[in-house]
Amino acid sequence: MLVPLTLLALAAAASQDRVAPPDPRHTLMPVPASLTWGEGRLRLDTAFTVTIGSPSRDGRLARGVARFRERLGRATGLLMGRGKSGLAVQVKGPGEKVQSPAEDESYVLEVRSSGATLEAATTVGALRGLETVLQLVEADSTGWWIPAVRIADQPRFAWRGLLIDVGRHWEPPEAIKRQLDGMAAVKLNVFHWHLSEDQGFRVESRRFPRLQGEGSDSLFYTQEQIREIVAYARDRGIRVVPEFDMPGHSTAWFVGYPRYASAPGPYAIERRFGVFAPTFDPTREETYRFLDGFVAEMAKLFPDRYWHIGGDEVEGSQWKSSSRIRSFMRAHRLADNAALQAWFNRRLSAILTRHGRRMVGWDEILHPALPRTTVVQSWRGRDALGRSVREGYSGILSAGYYIDQMQSAESHYLVDPIPDGSALTAEGAARVLGGEACMWGEHITPETIDSRIWPRLAAIAERLWSPREVRDVADMYRRLEAMRIRLEALGLGHEAHTPRMARRIANGNDAPALLRTLQLSEPVHFGERSRLQQLTQLTPLVYAVDAARPDPPAQWRFRALVTDALRPGPTSASSLKALTDAFAAWPDLAPAVDSLGTEAPLARDALPAARALGRLGAIGAEALAQLDRGPAPPEWARARLVALDSLERPQGLLRLSVVSAVRALVQGVAAR
Amino acid sequence: MLVPLTLLALAAAASQDRVAPPDPRHTLMPVPASLTWGEGRLRLDTAFTVTIGSPSRDGRLARGVARFRERLGRATGLLMGRGKSGLAVQVKGPGEKVQSPAEDESYVLEVRSSGATLEAATTVGALRGLETVLQLVEADSTGWWIPAVRIADQPRFAWRGLLIDVGRHWEPPEAIKRQLDGMAAVKLNVFHWHLSEDQGFRVESRRFPRLQGEGSDSLFYTQEQIREIVAYARDRGIRVVPEFDMPGHSTAWFVGYPRYASAPGPYAIERRFGVFAPTFDPTREETYRFLDGFVAEMAKLFPDRYWHIGGDEVEGSQWKSSSRIRSFMRAHRLADNAALQAWFNRRLSAILTRHGRRMVGWDEILHPALPRTTVVQSWRGRDALGRSVREGYSGILSAGYYIDQMQSAESHYLVDPIPDGSALTAEGAARVLGGEACMWGEHITPETIDSRIWPRLAAIAERLWSPREVRDVADMYRRLEAMRIRLEALGLGHEAHTPRMARRIANGNDAPALLRTLQLSEPVHFGERSRLQQLTQLTPLVYAVDAARPDPPAQWRFRALVTDALRPGPTSASSLKALTDAFAAWPDLAPAVDSLGTEAPLARDALPAARALGRLGAIGAEALAQLDRGPAPPEWARARLVALDSLERPQGLLRLSVVSAVRALVQGVAAR
Repeated sequence: MLVPLTLLALAAAASQDRVAPPDPRHTLMPVPASLTWGEGRLRLDTAFTVTIGSPSRDGRLARGVARFRERLGRATGLLMGRGKSGLAVQVKGPGEKVQSPAEDESYVLEVRSSGATLEAATTVGALRGLETVLQLVEADSTGWWIPAVRIADQPRFAWRGLLIDVGRHWEPPEAIKRQLDGMAAVKLNVFHWHLSEDQGFRVESRRFPRLQGEGSDSLFYTQEQIREIVAYARDRGIRVVPEFDMPGHSTAWFVGYPRYASAPGPYAIERRFGVFAPTFDPTREETYRFLDGFVAEMAKLFPDRYWHIGGDEVEGSQWKSSSRIRSFMRAHRLADNAALQAWFNRRLSAILTRHGRRMVGWDEILHPALPRTTVVQSWRGRDALGRSVREGYSGILSAGYYIDQMQSAESHYLVDPIPDGSALTAEGAARVLGGEACMWGEHITPETIDSRIWPRLAAIAERLWSPREVRDVADMYRRLEAMRIRLEALGLGHEAHTPRMARRIANGNDAPALLRTLQLSEPVHFGERSRLQQLTQLTPLVYAVDAARPDPPAQWRFRALVTDALRPGPTSASSLKALTDAFAAWPDLAPAVDSLGTEAPLARDALPAARALGRLGAIGAEALAQLDRGPAPPEWARARLVALDSLERPQGLLRLSVVSAVRALVQGVAAR
Repeated sequence: MLVPLTLLALAAAASQDRVAPPDPRHTLMPVPASLTWGEGRLRLDTAFTVTIGSPSRDGRLARGVARFRERLGRATGLLMGRGKSGLAVQVKGPGEKVQSPAEDESYVLEVRSSGATLEAATTVGALRGLETVLQLVEADSTGWWIPAVRIADQPRFAWRGLLIDVGRHWEPPEAIKRQLDGMAAVKLNVFHWHLSEDQGFRVESRRFPRLQGEGSDSLFYTQEQIREIVAYARDRGIRVVPEFDMPGHSTAWFVGYPRYASAPGPYAIERRFGVFAPTFDPTREETYRFLDGFVAEMAKLFPDRYWHIGGDEVEGSQWKSSSRIRSFMRAHRLADNAALQAWFNRRLSAILTRHGRRMVGWDEILHPALPRTTVVQSWRGRDALGRSVREGYSGILSAGYYIDQMQSAESHYLVDPIPDGSALTAEGAARVLGGEACMWGEHITPETIDSRIWPRLAAIAERLWSPREVRDVADMYRRLEAMRIRLEALGLGHEAHTPRMARRIANGNDAPALLRTLQLSEPVHFGERSRLQQLTQLTPLVYAVDAARPDPPAQWRFRALVTDALRPGPTSASSLKALTDAFAAWPDLAPAVDSLGTEAPLARDALPAARALGRLGAIGAEALAQLDRGPAPPEWARARLVALDSLERPQGLLRLSVVSAVRALVQGVAAR
């Protein structure tokens, strides 16, 4: 799914929405539905104890509380639990046996100086509330404490997901578990596991062992590992929706089972990325017998009632060039490939229904022949989502949440599945189940995935959980500062990522200039990289572009510094000083990166960005000088903004992430 | 095993050994047995290909070569393998079915500009050689290459191990696999897995499920995970020797099976650390029936022919206070607890023999009643090792290799199992199988273990592999600089550790002064921490002392800077400048750490070290000033050295790691 999204248009449409005033007294993420501050604080010390008021047969709550206790201990360094009061957790029941979008995730948290209570209808609600409690912990000279507060919270959308594509690049179980920990921390509830692709089939099938045997390079999940991950997710209130993409994106299936393809084969695992010819043969009964057997086996591993069939980007040439398939289409009055795909989907839908599963698929599956129980996941845009729900299907929005695009948290944050002023009827809006961030796998490895997902995903999670009016970008970034460290404490590697890769790229040399350059840069967008670099599945992803992080903290920090410097206030002098020092240092980066020399060939990829930072620093310094001199002539700003436009373009495979801050500074200086 | 070692005495005895001149042209670690440079270089480009000349039925070699290719690709960013020549790997055979200390690990590597050959008797030898090849890779303006060289290499000792204690603190499978990757990189070949302790029993037994069911807090390895880790280790030429410590250190066994203890119980998992009363009952037949059944089950999981029974630190009070056990001792003429333990060990040895296993145990098991096939692991000192081998037992040295002590790589590096001038006969020396580093588990968690093991373990690995004469400390540290990054590239977290924990300790604030303080510090020694801090198994290990690394790079880098500054040469001016800048910066650390304020309570633990660094910086600056002024009066140095003595003491739970560098500077200035 390569087409980049018209994000700017979406964001612009959304920007007319009302914005709730931010509350600087907390760093909660996602912001709860309602929050009322109280008086006083609840002390956290060795006496603090968590009790479960409602012994439930579901061990999930006990395990969730145990993890909560451990994390609270690790955050504070305190070995708690020696007293009798603290936090009392109470649930009405364990919740659904197999969690669905109907699960009640609401909770009410009351913190008083004498103790706290967390009440929820289900264990899942209690788990959401425990995450909130952890985010409320603070310290000062009196020690650790939680402020008195009443929070009544529930999600805005029932389906809040993350897709991870493990087909194009494999991710081992521990990498998946890390993401599940992070998802739970930001109250996401669907792990959409994209398990098959042209480049790999990633699940052990015992019934059809050549699927993983010949289609995976031995990189697949055993059934035991699948069960473990599904249980791990359930323990965190997260559903696991498997996706087996068909009829296209399916080369890897045919390596072991060529007879289900629409052309004879043989097939080999696809190493390139894109859209390829191999496609299931929808005209043969044995295809459906095979799929029925496959679904029967997999349904035992994946208890979720939803099942994703993919259905995107059917290339079509195998269907067009087969006379047998063409005559089948004539016989069944199927006008084109889309009609044939709908035929296939209808058969598939019947198989899924027989196994108690509801079908989910990408935009392209939308067809009048499909039952209205089908869920359509929109990757092409919000218009496609609107069409689906108007026609009576349930819908999930992914357009605008493609985190593989390497765009800013802000750009995703401002995409709303149902923006203020949406043309949807109340009925239509009710069919919008929620949204899913998509981590497609072309450019990720087990080493880089954490930095590609986090902390940006927290912004999308907030969009899907919090009230629509929660959309103050600066406040979102302020709270993301706290979240990135909390997420790191869970074991996620996004913060350690750039320094670690920089050490290797520098061949073990201490290279602060290389590190600084990478921290001030971000990877070019997905499409740009695809155009600029010939990549296959086998290319090592160890370059400067892999070391840089999308939307790095430098981006939002420098923007905050500029805002602060331009607005007279108690910290504007120190922000000015910070900017002055940074701008003065940037021109030294390129010579220092260059001096790493030829012994660190991979470091040279950072040179264009380092040079561009030098030019950017000069413009920034000039703007600060102009600030002292008073109003600037309009042509001064115009020339600078033209230069900034060119500095915004890719520098090799990197893009400077601090141009927008300097642009705001130049504009601010010009507007004085 | 709490008794700290008389390391200094060992090191002093060893220091009379001959030292081979270092070769600055390589960063190999361990240094090979013989190396001859050739002319020219072998180019690494996309054409470079690895071929296996000897198709062997052992898939290990193919998998090892696949890993090699991937790591080479990740080091260089090149997708290789498109040509026909490069490295040809040839083995005579796969090696032993179950690897033993007799496995041939030798290899011969020849690199010419036209191609390279790696020949070995076994797959294990080839794996060792592949690690050497990766360490030879270099780059310059011509691109990536390997220098022409001939290396004929084999280990000095057959048993080169790492013990990891997962009893006191659990380590998940992925943490273990990371250590195995690191071990293979430095050519270690025994993973000694300390699987049971007073604080936890860590293996799934299906025959006796209450062992893990009640003795592990649900933190144990399933049999499937054990098999996977044993296979993972074998793939890397590493044996897995399980240790089930008995008759002492065994509280966790008795939680589920109190009837095998020497006193009635009930028992609970021990949370404190130390030596405790619960001890197997050696007087009952049912104890041996139980152990026979247990060994039978476990022997299926652990194919290694060696089996560690522990046998250390039997506390003895349960034996002394039981009239039944005392009368058993009288009846069997067992004079004391040691004799009773020997009785137990003899029975255990017979059980192990029946299951095809050779017994290994700690010093305390040494007793004339034991068969000479027993292997004694010496933790009490080299004298104990000498006694064992003189009496005809095989021996392994661990005294001097206790990495939980938080001492320097140097201190371990200079401990030699058979130093030059050893009093052992040739026969006795031949019974010294090798050595093992011990990572005891009191003070480690999954989060900290990498930083406690690496990179120091590489120095011990070199001691056990390389010729005795390889013992130049400065050169070892020079090569360790390269190793630490190579080990990080394998996924080990030692380098990322301190920055990551510093971010959390600073409560998410950017805190360069806290980070710098931690990087210039190290944890106090094991015994010091045990005295200064009340710790149990449940205490969170998230303090400044856990964030600092033992023997951090700052230690050896500052020593090298001082050496360089004092010895006129091309870089001495820049080294002087680096020292001047550092000393000037240290007095600013304490105010900056202090300014983190009460919102980051855990950061306050670093204040004493930060303040001490201020004082140390002042002494350093004074010494540099004195350097300009010419010869210093003797009382000048004497006063400074006294001050340095006090700065060498623990500062809270931290110790400054840069005192030795300043001491060398003061001494150098005084000696002018």
